[in-house]
Order: sequence, then structure tokens, then C-alpha cells
Amino acid sequence: MLTSSDNKSELFLGIDGGGSKCKAIVMNKDNEILGTGISGPGNPLHGFEQATNSITESAKMALEDAGMPDTPLSDLVAGVGLAGVNLPVLFDKMAEWQHPFKQMFLATDLLIACLGAHQGNDGAVMISGTGSCGFSCIDDEEFIIGAHGFPHGDKGSGAWFGLQAAKQVLLSLDGVVSPSIMNDVLLAKLNCKDDTELVEAIAGKVATYYAQLANLVFDAAEQSDKIALGIVEEGAEYINSIARTLLAKQPPRISMIGGLTPRLKPWLAKDIQAQLAEPLSPPEVGAVLFARKTLAKQQQK
Amino acid sequence: MLTSSDNKSELFLGIDGGGSKCKAIVMNKDNEILGTGISGPGNPLHGFEQATNSITESAKMALEDAGMPDTPLSDLVAGVGLAGVNLPVLFDKMAEWQHPFKQMFLATDLLIACLGAHQGNDGAVMISGTGSCGFSCIDDEEFIIGAHGFPHGDKGSGAWFGLQAAKQVLLSLDGVVSPSIMNDVLLAKLNCKDDTELVEAIAGKVATYYAQLANLVFDAAEQSDKIALGIVEEGAEYINSIARTLLAKQPPRISMIGGLTPRLKPWLAKDIQAQLAEPLSPPEVGAVLFARKTLAKQQQK
Repeated sequence: MLTSSDNKSELFLGIDGGGSKCKAIVMNKDNEILGTGISGPGNPLHGFEQATNSITESAKMALEDAGMPDTPLSDLVAGVGLAGVNLPVLFDKMAEWQHPFKQMFLATDLLIACLGAHQGNDGAVMISGTGSCGFSCIDDEEFIIGAHGFPHGDKGSGAWFGLQAAKQVLLSLDGVVSPSIMNDVLLAKLNCKDDTELVEAIAGKVATYYAQLANLVFDAAEQSDKIALGIVEEGAEYINSIARTLLAKQPPRISMIGGLTPRLKPWLAKDIQAQLAEPLSPPEVGAVLFARKTLAKQQQK
Repeated sequence: MLTSSDNKSELFLGIDGGGSKCKAIVMNKDNEILGTGISGPGNPLHGFEQATNSITESAKMALEDAGMPDTPLSDLVAGVGLAGVNLPVLFDKMAEWQHPFKQMFLATDLLIACLGAHQGNDGAVMISGTGSCGFSCIDDEEFIIGAHGFPHGDKGSGAWFGLQAAKQVLLSLDGVVSPSIMNDVLLAKLNCKDDTELVEAIAGKVATYYAQLANLVFDAAEQSDKIALGIVEEGAEYINSIARTLLAKQPPRISMIGGLTPRLKPWLAKDIQAQLAEPLSPPEVGAVLFARKTLAKQQQK
């Protein structure tokens, strides 16, 4: 017979904390979605306080959305997937968090994304959102390629596309490279009248700022703008490389995920596009699957 | 007959405030150097407090070096050349500074560099230090190309070379591009054992951090490393473009200045190298020349 305490243990929280937002989902033991929440950045790379606040806040919102506003966070078994915790120093910092949950299982955003895409099964994912990378989890062995961050890495990501646009537009306004459709579009989007204002607007900006500029590169490329085509082809070529590296590991399934997928996928090599499977669930569901998997392993011991 | 007050008016301070350091020089009415000082970053882009502190501190050091530690800053007519004040918002902020000097004449780091290189006369300069750009001042008309900042601009600068190195090394360690001599050198320089540690080391780093990595790109290029050669050729090609744009304005003299000059100059196009004249004085002397020029104009009115 289930006791009241057993019942409580069957509420799961899934967290997907990225550079721009933190998503939460509450699910029951039958993997039914009870409610969802969304808050600010959940990447501890940009601040531990911000990340932990976003996690707590989005969890409370998900409980409220589920019609369970009085359920304490201490009733939830949490799977928490975070960007940035592939760096040991950030993993340790987050693992030491005096979290408010019944239990917390910490994973990278990559692992929960992969588990979500393949419903808890083995597989691989290419991710292009604010950042970019490739990841596979096969026979409990994890493999990462990319995920280096901005501005030194994350080629083929939204932030990378936006930064390339800004760079090429500045060179073009200086007459060093040929004119581009993007020049006027970028200036208008950022409310700038010339390159001096543009430099002021973008000085010191972070990845999420640049990611909002990615779409205009694809818009221009689709109008055959040479500069934009060069950027899109270079970005797509990098994601192709990621895909080929992952495919060499013979994953049962491979998916492409992340906010830039609809724009970037059509530019990938045809043979790669043909092998891409639709992701089955979002990363926050993957976080719940991760928590349940890890909990089951602990209980087996 | 000169009064005591007249005597004091003939002490000049020159300031060259860049992203990594602030240089000061005290000169007399005969343009003789009395003393010099050097302190931390003087670029208001990275903080108004930091910049104004660096300026004041380096000025006091220059007075001390001149054997005049009791001379108040209010005796000095200051020419202040600062990186960043090409942006109107930063120029206005610095112009509103309640400075401690008798008078302050504010200019861009580019103008004082150009005036210094050509001893107060018309001319043009290509600059590659932490940042990069081209500048000319001919018949009182100033022209800038580049100077866009990091990481979106400043191609061919120390920061740009360092960032390209980090990017290519990360891609190479991932197997996406071919191996490079730079891989081991960069890891060793930053005390990292693998790409994960490298990503941790460089996360969120500023231009001055990357600029310290520039030399290893040239070292590798000189050993015919393909990846490094690609970076050096791309950077040199941009500085060539800057030079050609400046030469089209027919400056009486053109020089290349900035900390990367000794490494980068041999990689420029031969016809450009042949036209480069040695810079005559450093930018902080140019700042004094700027102050004296502006003062003379005011007194003519």
C-alpha cells in the first residue's frame, strides 16, 4: 500500500536551464505533464544567483500552472539540466547548491536534450540555438563536440550567425568587403543610423543579444546575398562536420534541435538532412527522464 | 617678463589611455621630456572610474619621475588621448569629467597617435595593438576606418589574432580542422591540459587577455603551420586593405604603430611595407602636441 510519503515521491520536476531562459515541467509517475513554467537565464556561467533563482522561480510557476500552488518544492524530485555545467568548476558549484527539492539530479543541458529527443533512449543530437554543439549518449557513454561558448566557439549557432553579420556589416560599411542586403537591415533592426551608432549598440554584448540577429542572415541568404550566403555556408559546414562526427559513432537515432533548427536545417548536406529524426520530447522532459533513470539505478543498488 | 603664473602655464601633460595601460608624459614649452608615468587601463569603455583614476595616477607618476612631486596637477595643461572616445557617449562622459588639470583637451587615441607619429604634421597611421584601425588627419580632416572593438571588429589586432588562435585550436582539438603546432603551445601557455580546461580558462575573457596570445600565432606561422598561416594571411590582408584605403587619401606620410607592428609588418604586401615611414614620437607626445595646437588656436581667436 502506498503511503502519503510515497505519493509525494512520485512528483517529478524537469529543468532545462539555458543562456536565455529556464524552462520547468512538472510530471507525475506516469510521465504525464501536469504543468510548465518559464523564467530568466538558467546558465550558471552568467551567475550562480541568477541561475538558482531562475530554477526555483520556474519550478514554482510550473506548480502553479499544474493547479498545485501549495505543493512545496521539497515534494519534487528534480532533474536539472544546465548549460555550462560541462565545466567542472560550475558543475561542482551547482552540486553544492542548498537546493529546495526532495532530491536533485544534475546533468548537462546536452544530456537532457538528447534523452528528451530520443525518449530516454540512446541517440545523438546536433544543437543550434544561442550556442551550438553535438552530443551523443550510447551505452551510457557520453560524447561532446563543440559547446565551447561565445565568442571563441559555438560556430553555426544563433550567436555566431549574429556576430558574423555584425562583423561583415561593419567591414562592408567601411568598404573593405562588398555591399550586403544586411547592412540596412541590421542598422534598422538595431535603430542605428551609421557604423558609429552600430559599434555603440553592440559593444560588450553577450551571446543572447547576437542570437537575435541570426534570422536576418538567413533572410539575406535566401535573397542570394553573397556575404550572407558565405556566412550561412560556413555555419552549415561546421554543423555538417558535427553531424558526421556523431554519425561515425552509429547512434540509433539522430536529431537536430535548438531555436535555429528551422532556418539552418535546409542548408545542411542532403545526406545529413535525410538521416535526421524528429525530436520526440523537449529537453525539460528529458530532465525528468534523467531523474527517473538515475533514481531507479540508485534504488537497484 | 614672464610671471610665475606664465611659467606654470608652460608645463604640458600628454596622456595616451588605451585598453591595457595609460601612459603619461610631462613636457616643457620647448617640447623637452621631463618625466613619464604608466598605470592601468585608460579606456573609458571599460569603466569611467578606472579610466580617470589611471589618468590621474599616471600623471602624478610622471611628475614624480620629473623630480617635481609637489607640482599640483592644476599646473598642467593636459592633452588627453583615449581609446573609446570616438563613441559620442564616451566622449561626452569624459568631457564632463571634473578633471584636476589647468585645462584638458580631449582627443581620440587615434588623433594623438597620428600627431605623434608625424611630429604634429598631417599623415596617416595603421594601428595594430590590442585593437586595430586606420586613421588619417589631412588638412584638419580626420578619417577613421575600423576601430570597431572586440570581438565584432578589430580584425588584424592582437586580440583578433589571439581569438582566432583559440577558435582554431578548439576546432582542431575537436578534429574539425587539421592539427596545428598552436594546439600544444596554447594549452601550455594557459596551463590547460585539455579543451575543457581551455574553455574554462578563456570563458568571458576580454581583448587584452586574447592579445597576449597573438605572438604564438606568428611563431607557428613562421614554422609554416597551415592553420597559423591562414590566420596571419587573413589578418595581414585586412591591414593591407586599411593601408590602401588610407593611401588613396594621399597622406604626406604613413606609419604603422601599435604593439603588434614588429610581428605583423613583415607579412604586409611588399608595396605597402615600402611606403611605411618610422613613427617619430609616441602617442603621449602626440597628446602634448595636440594640446599645444588647440591652445594656440584658442589664443588666436
